[in-house]
Amino acid sequence: MSRQPLFDRLAIIGIGLIGSSVARAARERGLVRQIAIADASEQHRQDAARLQLGDEVHADAAEAARDADLIMFCVPLGANAAVAAHVAPALKPGAIVSDVGSCKQAVIRDIAPHLPAGVHLVPGHPVAGTEHSGPKAGFASLFENRWCILTPPPGADARAVEAVKAFWAACGSKVEVMEPRHHDLVLAITSHVPHLIAYNIVGTADDLETVTEGEVIKYSAGGFRDFTRIAASDPTMWRDVFLNNKEAVLEMLGRFTEDLIALQRAIRWGEGDTLFNLFTRTRAIRRAIIDAGQETAAPDFGRSPAAGKSEG
Amino acid sequence: MSRQPLFDRLAIIGIGLIGSSVARAARERGLVRQIAIADASEQHRQDAARLQLGDEVHADAAEAARDADLIMFCVPLGANAAVAAHVAPALKPGAIVSDVGSCKQAVIRDIAPHLPAGVHLVPGHPVAGTEHSGPKAGFASLFENRWCILTPPPGADARAVEAVKAFWAACGSKVEVMEPRHHDLVLAITSHVPHLIAYNIVGTADDLETVTEGEVIKYSAGGFRDFTRIAASDPTMWRDVFLNNKEAVLEMLGRFTEDLIALQRAIRWGEGDTLFNLFTRTRAIRRAIIDAGQETAAPDFGRSPAAGKSEG
Repeated sequence: MSRQPLFDRLAIIGIGLIGSSVARAARERGLVRQIAIADASEQHRQDAARLQLGDEVHADAAEAARDADLIMFCVPLGANAAVAAHVAPALKPGAIVSDVGSCKQAVIRDIAPHLPAGVHLVPGHPVAGTEHSGPKAGFASLFENRWCILTPPPGADARAVEAVKAFWAACGSKVEVMEPRHHDLVLAITSHVPHLIAYNIVGTADDLETVTEGEVIKYSAGGFRDFTRIAASDPTMWRDVFLNNKEAVLEMLGRFTEDLIALQRAIRWGEGDTLFNLFTRTRAIRRAIIDAGQETAAPDFGRSPAAGKSEG
Repeated sequence: MSRQPLFDRLAIIGIGLIGSSVARAARERGLVRQIAIADASEQHRQDAARLQLGDEVHADAAEAARDADLIMFCVPLGANAAVAAHVAPALKPGAIVSDVGSCKQAVIRDIAPHLPAGVHLVPGHPVAGTEHSGPKAGFASLFENRWCILTPPPGADARAVEAVKAFWAACGSKVEVMEPRHHDLVLAITSHVPHLIAYNIVGTADDLETVTEGEVIKYSAGGFRDFTRIAASDPTMWRDVFLNNKEAVLEMLGRFTEDLIALQRAIRWGEGDTLFNLFTRTRAIRRAIIDAGQETAAPDFGRSPAAGKSEG
């Protein structure tokens, strides 16, 4: 790549789906001169080395963070505080610490107190992903045409914010700056609660005595299988999301349940108009998402039977 | 096609997504000699004629059903009783009436009483579809590698059941015979409740004052957009599903809500193990659905940005 690198040394702490996609995008697009990777998992380190995702692969996050200009935390939210405390002494003045976590108030709460003066915190959240996990699951185009939300804390260094913005824009993302608390509310409804109810219905189905698991699997094309896709996402990451965005998730979940009980009542009393009106309104939102380029209009329910084969 | 037709005259009452896919599959695979179509909508009739989905297109369902060997009801469940009463005098002895509805006890309740002696009722449910509607949305391969569930009432004619089985098998479906009541229970959890909660969360999101609709649309890639796909399905069809499978839907919905309240409590009290254990269990079910060929393992969350364009 002939582009001038945006950073000299990028440290990626945690080389899972997102971390490895950041590594691939940064390398492919020539965004940095050097990539140092750290991961607590021996298997992940081996995969990262074999796939040549970076120039260095460390077990110790501080070794990767040493002398880095941009340190990207790509670990489950629950690990942020310990990682921040551990790498802090290795950070050089002027370094920028960022992350990719799904809850931003918790990230600031857990990372900021550990950072030495002169190190800048610019939390970020690329709204992108797949239901697969690990270094092998990542790919360079994951962030293209997706939003990345930055949530700098009050008083954040403006140049550091611009630098992180430029990094994500160069990955193909559309970048937005948002207040951390508002981010957590928006993501609670667009991501966290959808995941929770997907996990929940798959669990409910698995527990039934009247319908066998074999039947649930066979007839899943009726709608259920779309929920299983979401419910196959990384368990550790998602446990930490719910533990770290409690307030907003409980608020949105309360509204969801309230609305669902009202629908249940409409079914019990045969109120067809209530159902019809809701089902018509929701169609318009689908249309808007497609128009916004965040989805394709291809009829994905009728997935190609040829593609319906296991990879395993 | 060189195959011997299975039926002489096929009448399709209702030429929407499913009806038009049946027409296309029957024609492409040479399953019938003649296709007669009826639809109450002028627009649908025009589309059906223009797309040459059949040999005849009628406004009056009785005209299509006259002399037909197989009459396939492809109308919303709420229309079945009136259509059955209307076409009954036109049905010839030995004719088979079938359908494609998502609730089978209601179909038997609504259609059977109207049929003259010597006409056989073999209700069916192809577990396939897309989020699009209308004659233009159908395609011949929709039923390939999908299940079709037949629910013959007690005492049904065995040869008629075999004939309908052969029809769906020739459309590429895997065919299963099931007791109507059990079908309604299985589909409540694999299809009806998933649709209801998808419609519900899209409605909840639309009603928020703290998060704008624009934000919901922009950041929908975090999980929400997968629900909007389901929540874009045909409103009339789905209203009728909930009104006609009330008992099983309310039973499954009760379990879903109970489980969700337990998860909500786990979040409130920070019980990470409860969340982690559920999230791990649900991954295994996803794997089983892929292994069963009902889904592809491709990481669909990371939908191709190139495909993320509006068709409209």
